[in-house]
Amino acid sequence: MPSCTRLCALLLTLLDPVLSGRAEDIDVVVFLPQNNSFLFSSARVAPALRYAQRRLEAGEGNSSVFHFHLHFHSSDSPNEALFALVDRSCARKPDLILGPVREYEAAGVARLASHWNIPMISAGALAAGFGDKNSEFSQLTRIAPQYVKMAETFSALFERFGWRSALLLYEEDKQERNCYFTLEGVYHLMSEYPISQFPVLEGVPLHVDEIVDSMNDSEVVIMCMGADRIRSIMLAAHRHQLTRGRKIFFSIELFNASTYGDGSWRRNDEHDSEAKQAYASLNTVTLLRTVKPEFENFSLEMKSSAEKEGIYDCKDCGSVNMFVEGFHDAMLLYAIALHEAMKHGYSKKNGTEVTSRMWNRTIEGIAGQVSIDTNGDRNGDFSVMAMTDVEAGTFEMVANYFGVNRTLELLPSFRAERFTLKERHEASPLPP
Amino acid sequence: MPSCTRLCALLLTLLDPVLSGRAEDIDVVVFLPQNNSFLFSSARVAPALRYAQRRLEAGEGNSSVFHFHLHFHSSDSPNEALFALVDRSCARKPDLILGPVREYEAAGVARLASHWNIPMISAGALAAGFGDKNSEFSQLTRIAPQYVKMAETFSALFERFGWRSALLLYEEDKQERNCYFTLEGVYHLMSEYPISQFPVLEGVPLHVDEIVDSMNDSEVVIMCMGADRIRSIMLAAHRHQLTRGRKIFFSIELFNASTYGDGSWRRNDEHDSEAKQAYASLNTVTLLRTVKPEFENFSLEMKSSAEKEGIYDCKDCGSVNMFVEGFHDAMLLYAIALHEAMKHGYSKKNGTEVTSRMWNRTIEGIAGQVSIDTNGDRNGDFSVMAMTDVEAGTFEMVANYFGVNRTLELLPSFRAERFTLKERHEASPLPP
Repeated sequence: MPSCTRLCALLLTLLDPVLSGRAEDIDVVVFLPQNNSFLFSSARVAPALRYAQRRLEAGEGNSSVFHFHLHFHSSDSPNEALFALVDRSCARKPDLILGPVREYEAAGVARLASHWNIPMISAGALAAGFGDKNSEFSQLTRIAPQYVKMAETFSALFERFGWRSALLLYEEDKQERNCYFTLEGVYHLMSEYPISQFPVLEGVPLHVDEIVDSMNDSEVVIMCMGADRIRSIMLAAHRHQLTRGRKIFFSIELFNASTYGDGSWRRNDEHDSEAKQAYASLNTVTLLRTVKPEFENFSLEMKSSAEKEGIYDCKDCGSVNMFVEGFHDAMLLYAIALHEAMKHGYSKKNGTEVTSRMWNRTIEGIAGQVSIDTNGDRNGDFSVMAMTDVEAGTFEMVANYFGVNRTLELLPSFRAERFTLKERHEASPLPP
Repeated sequence: MPSCTRLCALLLTLLDPVLSGRAEDIDVVVFLPQNNSFLFSSARVAPALRYAQRRLEAGEGNSSVFHFHLHFHSSDSPNEALFALVDRSCARKPDLILGPVREYEAAGVARLASHWNIPMISAGALAAGFGDKNSEFSQLTRIAPQYVKMAETFSALFERFGWRSALLLYEEDKQERNCYFTLEGVYHLMSEYPISQFPVLEGVPLHVDEIVDSMNDSEVVIMCMGADRIRSIMLAAHRHQLTRGRKIFFSIELFNASTYGDGSWRRNDEHDSEAKQAYASLNTVTLLRTVKPEFENFSLEMKSSAEKEGIYDCKDCGSVNMFVEGFHDAMLLYAIALHEAMKHGYSKKNGTEVTSRMWNRTIEGIAGQVSIDTNGDRNGDFSVMAMTDVEAGTFEMVANYFGVNRTLELLPSFRAERFTLKERHEASPLPP
């Protein structure tokens, strides 16, 4: 019956905001800590979300049809986010969940979001365990590269330079376990290599001699630890003559990329000169920083918001961190996916259809391209930094790893001898 | 104003079912698995709950004023119970939660129950981590002795016999982790002793020589593992001449107490005779079984219910397990506490007042006294079984440990030489 078909099409147009031009209200629940000691505290991330909201409501990306309502909930204690989600959802379930970042908080929320079919995007939840999207975490999209993506950088380096074994040396706080989860990524991805582990308890004095002993059987030492402890360990390794190609040393510093490296051997104490020599053998893996013109404006606005909030903190001067960028881009990614889903006749309540359109997709984020893989996890680009001027003790990027095409790019500043073992530990088994 | 006071008292009488005699409806949500392979499956436990319900509604313990409405929810997959609780509680929150038993399921439900101030009683959630009742698990009462209580038995034995070190040898399934959590109790409670661990992965072939090697530095070997693996290990230890007082061996078998021990060396194979000799050096820690006359009726009814349900399973012939007893007694304990709380003017919705009245209390349970400590955890009584007839290869109880007064009682069948190390490993440090 053609008249019915026409009527149906008309009704569809009237009911569908994408087709009718009427704005659709989007309820967004945001779980971030109130405590400003986190890089992803609510006060730091909220301005980025509002920035994205303004751009989107002004019509960028065909999304002027959406009105975002941001509801901020604190997630300072472990179960706060989950309980808030449960309690508020009796009346009405949100359309989108942003955060939490920390693993243990994110787990409960991600499970419930998946149970309720609500899209959830986080710039955290970076642990390997969240990768199982078949059941528990089916609605979780990770807008920052998870730790396993960072581990790809090491996998590429090991393959390129023929290293055979690694020691993972990390600080364990038994609470948030950031360094544990960070190196767990390496452990998971590089399971074909002999990998040993040495956890160092937070708050417990460092036994550097024991740590240096633990390096015996490994060619590469990968560390995740506070800057002062890294320095103590590098000094000890240097004194035991393990630097200068006897071992290859890495430190992982994902979140304060702009301030790491250059100068971090310096404490203005009597060990500075020796530390500078030791750090000549230390490489650092960081997130690859890209900048495009539009980023400048965003960055300035974030800085001014932070100052207004009184959370100006020189450790992050001039830098917008991965979490701030990530949550901004999460809004963009969601809007694009929702727009497309609605064009195909799906409602915002159909989380499966919206989430699937965020996966296997590349968008133009605030700082550069954001590419989400087929499993809903962001591909990561990472840099290796090394000391290029041993007199000045300054660091530069010497290699980049690009997650999308899994390539390692050596930069002109790269010096092969820095990545070559001087005397191979013959006891190490060959890699398979 | 005296007239108001009288009016208030009258109103209170009319509104309070305890004082008015009117029945109060109690909504009970029960989380147990549908899968009958568990000792605590819904089909096994439900008859015990209905038995308790009938007793209570018939007026036992002054609780004829309560009408219990039991709502059964399956908890087969890890998050099912939590999601069911969340989804059903929007309309109305339950008054009491029974179960879940398994640690990972119980954790989420116990957190939410505590957040919502709903009393929760489980015959499971036995891991040490649930002991923190100050925040996350404030509403959780454990009606079966948690693993740390079982560990008290070892603590008492070590103290009595002067043993100095232990090896914890356990099967790790990386899923429910029953044996991990069981021995974690020993590890927690006996932290002043040198304790080493040897996890054996489920489904991976047993390397008995490696396991026997791992026994080198320990005087006592405590095992938690399936019966076949225990036998393989005991045979290997016997062949390496570690039995007969060179080491003290224990196996923990909490849940099939009546069928463990006697005969479990027997497989009707060529190793039976050797295994019998090896098992002469194996002691088993089980739950202490008590029987009182009323128990007989209960036991018969449970058996007939199980037969009707078609879950008659000879492994449990004639025995009502700890979970079935525990959940029965949970109903009694709750009714007594609620009755008392209401007499003091508190409503059933005041979980804190109801729960606090279940703690630091001893009640007459279906099989014997049930004593809940000040932290809301049941005190445990355990038995040590040992081979008393080496010809027949039969086992008997040789010692009991009573949790309430923390005493170890040696029975007439006890032989001191069975618990004495023949040659002390002089390298072992003295206990502090």
